Amino acid sequence: MKIFLFGERVTEPVDHPMIRPSINAVAETYDLAIREEELATAKSSLTGLQVNRFLHIAESVQDVVLQNKMQRKMGQNTGTCFQRCVGMDALNSLHSTTFEMDEKHGTNYHQRLLDFIKMLQTENFVIGGAMTDPKGDRSKGPAEQVDPDMFLHIVKKDDKGIYITGAKAHQTGCINSHWIMIMPTLRLTENDKDYAIVGAIPADAEGITYIYGRQSCDTRSMEEGDLDSGNSKYAGQEAMIILDNVFIPWDKIFMNGEYEFAAMLIERFTCYHRRSYVCKTGLGDVLIGAAATIADYNGIPNVSHIKDKLVEMTHLNESIFAAGIASSYQSHKMKSGVWMNDEMLANVCKHNVTRFPYEIGRLAQDIAGGLMVTMPSEQDFRNPETGPMLQKYLAGRKGVDVENRMRILRLIENMTLGRNAVGYLTESMHGAGSPQAQRIQIARQMQLGYKMNLAKNLASVKDDFLEPTEPSSYFERVFKISNDKE
Amino acid sequence: MKIFLFGERVTEPVDHPMIRPSINAVAETYDLAIREEELATAKSSLTGLQVNRFLHIAESVQDVVLQNKMQRKMGQNTGTCFQRCVGMDALNSLHSTTFEMDEKHGTNYHQRLLDFIKMLQTENFVIGGAMTDPKGDRSKGPAEQVDPDMFLHIVKKDDKGIYITGAKAHQTGCINSHWIMIMPTLRLTENDKDYAIVGAIPADAEGITYIYGRQSCDTRSMEEGDLDSGNSKYAGQEAMIILDNVFIPWDKIFMNGEYEFAAMLIERFTCYHRRSYVCKTGLGDVLIGAAATIADYNGIPNVSHIKDKLVEMTHLNESIFAAGIASSYQSHKMKSGVWMNDEMLANVCKHNVTRFPYEIGRLAQDIAGGLMVTMPSEQDFRNPETGPMLQKYLAGRKGVDVENRMRILRLIENMTLGRNAVGYLTESMHGAGSPQAQRIQIARQMQLGYKMNLAKNLASVKDDFLEPTEPSSYFERVFKISNDKE
Amino acid sequence: MKIFLFGERVTEPVDHPMIRPSINAVAETYDLAIREEELATAKSSLTGLQVNRFLHIAESVQDVVLQNKMQRKMGQNTGTCFQRCVGMDALNSLHSTTFEMDEKHGTNYHQRLLDFIKMLQTENFVIGGAMTDPKGDRSKGPAEQVDPDMFLHIVKKDDKGIYITGAKAHQTGCINSHWIMIMPTLRLTENDKDYAIVGAIPADAEGITYIYGRQSCDTRSMEEGDLDSGNSKYAGQEAMIILDNVFIPWDKIFMNGEYEFAAMLIERFTCYHRRSYVCKTGLGDVLIGAAATIADYNGIPNVSHIKDKLVEMTHLNESIFAAGIASSYQSHKMKSGVWMNDEMLANVCKHNVTRFPYEIGRLAQDIAGGLMVTMPSEQDFRNPETGPMLQKYLAGRKGVDVENRMRILRLIENMTLGRNAVGYLTESMHGAGSPQAQRIQIARQMQLGYKMNLAKNLASVKDDFLEPTEPSSYFERVFKISNDKE
Amino acid sequence: MKIFLFGERVTEPVDHPMIRPSINAVAETYDLAIREEELATAKSSLTGLQVNRFLHIAESVQDVVLQNKMQRKMGQNTGTCFQRCVGMDALNSLHSTTFEMDEKHGTNYHQRLLDFIKMLQTENFVIGGAMTDPKGDRSKGPAEQVDPDMFLHIVKKDDKGIYITGAKAHQTGCINSHWIMIMPTLRLTENDKDYAIVGAIPADAEGITYIYGRQSCDTRSMEEGDLDSGNSKYAGQEAMIILDNVFIPWDKIFMNGEYEFAAMLIERFTCYHRRSYVCKTGLGDVLIGAAATIADYNGIPNVSHIKDKLVEMTHLNESIFAAGIASSYQSHKMKSGVWMNDEMLANVCKHNVTRFPYEIGRLAQDIAGGLMVTMPSEQDFRNPETGPMLQKYLAGRKGVDVENRMRILRLIENMTLGRNAVGYLTESMHGAGSPQAQRIQIARQMQLGYKMNLAKNLASVKDDFLEPTEPSSYFERVFKISNDKE
Repeated sequence: MKIFLFGERVTEPVDHPMIRPSINAVAETYDLAIREEELATAKSSLTGLQVNRFLHIAESVQDVVLQNKMQRKMGQNTGTCFQRCVGMDALNSLHSTTFEMDEKHGTNYHQRLLDFIKMLQTENFVIGGAMTDPKGDRSKGPAEQVDPDMFLHIVKKDDKGIYITGAKAHQTGCINSHWIMIMPTLRLTENDKDYAIVGAIPADAEGITYIYGRQSCDTRSMEEGDLDSGNSKYAGQEAMIILDNVFIPWDKIFMNGEYEFAAMLIERFTCYHRRSYVCKTGLGDVLIGAAATIADYNGIPNVSHIKDKLVEMTHLNESIFAAGIASSYQSHKMKSGVWMNDEMLANVCKHNVTRFPYEIGRLAQDIAGGLMVTMPSEQDFRNPETGPMLQKYLAGRKGVDVENRMRILRLIENMTLGRNAVGYLTESMHGAGSPQAQRIQIARQMQLGYKMNLAKNLASVKDDFLEPTEPSSYFERVFKISNDKE
Repeated sequence: MKIFLFGERVTEPVDHPMIRPSINAVAETYDLAIREEELATAKSSLTGLQVNRFLHIAESVQDVVLQNKMQRKMGQNTGTCFQRCVGMDALNSLHSTTFEMDEKHGTNYHQRLLDFIKMLQTENFVIGGAMTDPKGDRSKGPAEQVDPDMFLHIVKKDDKGIYITGAKAHQTGCINSHWIMIMPTLRLTENDKDYAIVGAIPADAEGITYIYGRQSCDTRSMEEGDLDSGNSKYAGQEAMIILDNVFIPWDKIFMNGEYEFAAMLIERFTCYHRRSYVCKTGLGDVLIGAAATIADYNGIPNVSHIKDKLVEMTHLNESIFAAGIASSYQSHKMKSGVWMNDEMLANVCKHNVTRFPYEIGRLAQDIAGGLMVTMPSEQDFRNPETGPMLQKYLAGRKGVDVENRMRILRLIENMTLGRNAVGYLTESMHGAGSPQAQRIQIARQMQLGYKMNLAKNLASVKDDFLEPTEPSSYFERVFKISNDKE
Repeated sequence: MKIFLFGERVTEPVDHPMIRPSINAVAETYDLAIREEELATAKSSLTGLQVNRFLHIAESVQDVVLQNKMQRKMGQNTGTCFQRCVGMDALNSLHSTTFEMDEKHGTNYHQRLLDFIKMLQTENFVIGGAMTDPKGDRSKGPAEQVDPDMFLHIVKKDDKGIYITGAKAHQTGCINSHWIMIMPTLRLTENDKDYAIVGAIPADAEGITYIYGRQSCDTRSMEEGDLDSGNSKYAGQEAMIILDNVFIPWDKIFMNGEYEFAAMLIERFTCYHRRSYVCKTGLGDVLIGAAATIADYNGIPNVSHIKDKLVEMTHLNESIFAAGIASSYQSHKMKSGVWMNDEMLANVCKHNVTRFPYEIGRLAQDIAGGLMVTMPSEQDFRNPETGPMLQKYLAGRKGVDVENRMRILRLIENMTLGRNAVGYLTESMHGAGSPQAQRIQIARQMQLGYKMNLAKNLASVKDDFLEPTEPSSYFERVFKISNDKE
Repeated sequence: MKIFLFGERVTEPVDHPMIRPSINAVAETYDLAIREEELATAKSSLTGLQVNRFLHIAESVQDVVLQNKMQRKMGQNTGTCFQRCVGMDALNSLHSTTFEMDEKHGTNYHQRLLDFIKMLQTENFVIGGAMTDPKGDRSKGPAEQVDPDMFLHIVKKDDKGIYITGAKAHQTGCINSHWIMIMPTLRLTENDKDYAIVGAIPADAEGITYIYGRQSCDTRSMEEGDLDSGNSKYAGQEAMIILDNVFIPWDKIFMNGEYEFAAMLIERFTCYHRRSYVCKTGLGDVLIGAAATIADYNGIPNVSHIKDKLVEMTHLNESIFAAGIASSYQSHKMKSGVWMNDEMLANVCKHNVTRFPYEIGRLAQDIAGGLMVTMPSEQDFRNPETGPMLQKYLAGRKGVDVENRMRILRLIENMTLGRNAVGYLTESMHGAGSPQAQRIQIARQMQLGYKMNLAKNLASVKDDFLEPTEPSSYFERVFKISNDKE
């Protein structure tokens, strides 16, 4: 793999101290599958194997619900982004989309996809999903750009496969993946056929360059000691992928010019993915725990305003969880047999994720106190002259180890300003679509016509009822007697 | 029944124009059971009958979920409080509590309760639940009050039954009920044995006086015309019940002195009931529809800030729904066989109900415009001199009937300031416990010790892990693989 | 005066129980001028008299500041809208606008206005301001409407004066005024010359019809007793004014066709008026006091969450006050000699007024408890049978008179749902322009170009600095060394 | 000076790349005094000199107001904490406190202070203020601690002066100061006499050790290039000061055992200082400008939701400014002749500072897009292989230089996650007292008794009026006719 970081090639990413924590986070998805098999694996009817849940196609409501439960647990265990949800959600959304493409066009994408999934399950691979193009001039579509590479596109076809060029920005966990699923990033028109491409490529394919993304406080992982990094073991990863004439063989291609299905794929992917942000409630659990710990270490765990803030943090965190898990519980079965969560509630979940972690973070900083951002370095703590001074003056309540107190403060810094604040805050804002994207989807789902009739009825409005024609069946699902009945 | 309103006895409540709308709301619970049988009725294993869902004991997760779905529908259909949730939640919480009382004390309350429920189901009665005592000096318990009647209590026992005296404040729908279930209102101690009483009494029992509660704009229902009341058909009802030596026969008594079970009953009742506030999302649907309609009538439905406010209202409304339905989906089976929803998420649901309807109401007023509170009366509209002036000057966009525009504005007034604002706002604040009550329950559920260990682990804190002993099994349910497995 | 209310002519408004409280509120503007002369009067350099401050032209920064101080006091004393700010703000904004019109057009509007003000000051009259037209089809301007009367306009001119026809909607205190100042409601174009009219008319002029606006719970003022109305003495007033061929003599005309000055007048009027909403902090003081009183009566004044809510209410209330008074302190002198407050901060003040009173009201309801909306009527309280029951069961903490407790609850109802909620909430939302109107003005004032340069400078951006041309001199005022230096 | 950073002595702080930006920020306080003399200097009546305003004692309302105006300008110019407000506010609060101490105790602290201030003004020195002690066990007072050094205290006295030992935590700009004013950190009792010490020491006094505080992303200043640091020129500074037997001569001592004046000094200092946080509106201006610039660079400056967010950011920023400047305008003259701002409004200002910058930062991240936290390093941008790739794919709208776009994104990162987020967010939370400290002061100022009487009056409550005895004269100042009249 051709990876650049700080202007240099990284030949052994596993050994790079700044990359290592992101690999640890992915590794925990394997470890959890061993430690908590029911939660983190599933019996796949495709292969008959007990597979990692991140590679499983949801075969029931419960499968969709268990994705959320596993995501929260992973968030609790790592305190960061563990990078595998994009791949899981891509496979599940492709399952139904390829099926419906085949139905219309007589293609055989669905079977190809199933074969690909079987291989992934058998080999227990990590798959990432690559969606976000650089976009260039945002007022123009793919085919209208001055530079055609602003959106990933086909540059050549032959009987073996196709060749693509372009880039994918801020790609979660791509360097830690075995395979990458390439997908379009927005609704396409007939002119954009060359951009309507979905396909799987090995992460180390010829023609790919990765440029590692910087994160707040990233170089603390490269400093001596483990204290100042706050969470020395785990971190997220995002990189830019540049693809220059990269080859995909025909059997790994799952869309090729069916531009009218781009929107369907994206909507289904974001539907799964916006609810996948339930993972952030796992991070929220960690941050609430850290705030409770520092309150304890400071000797003020029972002060009423502190307790009240911990309750508020919990309330906000569980409000996110509720919307995600409700969306999963309200799943319905697609034509292809895969189950998909409710779209309105998925958008409500993600929209709360763009707000509440910031408030939870603010409250954590409130409880932590100012020392969190004025504390000297670990080296000063280890220095024989200043170390004892810090030991003396940074003492909290009796019985608390000063280093433990510093560790908790650094963890709060890590999650609200530092390396994992990237995942807990900014990624919560923009991942799976920025806030406005959710508002647009909520608007499409909200069935105003239906609600206007409810109001008109109670207000005894006369002669002004219309049969609403809404682009949504949200209330149909709300009032569905049972998900099991098709 | 002995009912007072405006200082006078009301002999025929059905005919009273101010009471009538509250009866209509209850009537809709019967009508819906006919129109939408699957939603609003259930097959009871107690009687084998298809019974009104408000009288049904939840026999599965799906039963708990369907309560919420029915509640939202009822809220949509009436735009007010339909008054039957207290009874439903009381029966369900008594089901498990009586079972566990019998288990400990060898009593036979559970069978009595089952017999009572069978009778209700067979007769298709309305049952209300009466919990809130006047409380007197809030710093003292029941037995410590100067006036012993500040909490309802036993004044006499004989071989036929017991006699009780006291009062129950702001009792939802009590006058529209056939039966009333009396329950204690707070945790009791050994001294409070005479206050540990649960029993069912007919609403027209000897010794009961009802004093009707006033609501904002209540007398508009008594004015000529139906326009100014906003929602002329439906309204809520709350009254004060004074009980003077009221008799309950032994077979209708379901707790008698087992003071240590009062807290259990109240916690289970509020657990069901806080999630029952999902009904308010039905009212929210109506108010969002009204706001969208007035925007349309004003000719500005597509202005970006209006659309954005409708999206925000929807987002908040669905955040409430999500927490409620998630709580129901996370139900677990009690020893007695009844299913109970998740307590943390029920409290999260209700806590959002104490906030979001106020913001939804504020946004509705924003969209409505000032005319909502400065519009002349219906009589001015009907007056031959001023009527044409109003027809001329209150015209909205072309094609909109002026009276329809006035009707929608009056509906928004009704729900944000008027009669049903009582149900949509203030009752959302205080019903099933005021905000602080939820915060206390969230605090009891939030498992800080568990979360502190998560944080300490990621911060590499040394030698400071404790096995937490929490008064909650919330995370156990969060990570439960399947509700169906006990 | 021709006044309609509930479809009937009101011949003696002073004697009408529903109108009387609005008259009392205006009367307090006279009484305060006697009791607190320095606060509520000023020495006018026009007449040399000590005049009511509502009729005074601001001759210094301190004069503008004292308007705010008087407004807060009036809000505290009445708990409602006292209806005189529109007139005050109209006179002050016309002072500078007529001066600049004369400067351009050689007219003599300014002197006419001064003569009119002198007469008002000498007679100590009440003047109202009438701005809001019905607007009809909101996508069309005045001259483009199908019905030309949708905006008030000239229908005839002769050598004595002009004749106007149209209507003004939700006019604060108009029936309690001696004179009414007619003004245009929006930016006008050359086609709208007939709509560019400013003039003063006696409130009882020939051709005027008033139709009284309904308010929530308005008829409680007409019931026996004074308890249920909550604030029986004071209320606001808004009515619709229909003008049919109403005459204005030339000497009372202050704009006649100078359409390009309509926008200037409106902007200056709203600049003064949006900061006048500081009055609502006086109402806020009352509501905070009511909440503190009921907490005391309930026996829980020192519970930490109650105290915390009172602090939050105060914080929000003072945030409104701060923005208003800051706007007044940042006043600058206009060409005509009148002083005008800062526009950005006036908009910030009003924008907070569209938000914070709703939250203060919500918190007041939280503290009040549910009894506020379920309490029986005063008649039940006076009834010999039910009265003693209520006396017994509605008792709060020891030593509290039950009627006093009911009175405070009714006051909170009055301000959050009832008659004065119209002024405290909905009028706070829409008076002086709805929230979006403030956002537009904030956008015009915010000098983004200036701020972009600040950012570019610190980011060391290269070759990308522009001299911003902003429609605002906000920062010039922010950094002005002294207001006294022109 | 004995300074430690990363476990090593720093001998030349001026040359240290991580310290240098904090020195630049202080230097700008000198430069501004030259460039904008009226704003940033004042004629001191003590020395007759035109002195830096940070060293000036406020001699009028306008002087207090101009402090705020200068602070906003400094915030705009540096985008960080410029570290001189603590000293300014300490001198001003000591002016009145020493005067009143002398009045009671017959001491001569006030004259000593004036002499000290004259020297500072003449030499144009920087003075820092040191207040926050480590506190140890927070449930115990200074004299009750196991380790007496947990609060700074006198360890020896002789005829030349006194010797003190202890530490001061997170001291803003201390290394960049010439002198440091030592002050107690909380209300003291008779047992705490040795802790009631105020005195001035040279920053390089014998016995002082400084340990530099880490900030998020601090080491980016030590990397090659200036891009990734976001704001390469300016940063804040906070360090821990350890004082071991440090000498203060008698003429530099301004309190010595008068424990009952500790509370007065702290309250007056925080009164000035909480309003000094108006500086953050200058940072807010920069961040709003950065957000507007990135929206422009992304090609979407006119999208309605972007504009709306910029308006919201401005509204919040100006709400902070309004409260601060209103507090300054409502100043009153103290016995010593110095002017002091209003305390309620100062607390309201600071309390908004603990909330709004977080929301402004959240909105800035929303507008910025995800690239802010996934962008590769400057070295990758300079690398000949990856540089052209980034130039190609990170292009925004046509005509925008890619490096400029990266620079603005890094500035937003700097202010919301990076080095200056410490000052803009966490210091806004905890500087001059954490949120709860403001709530306590608001509670002490809010005159509930006065407000309760307002409510009781309007509710016609009978026989229940008390003359309130409040620890505040807030409303006296609110309704004061003129600040100039004593």
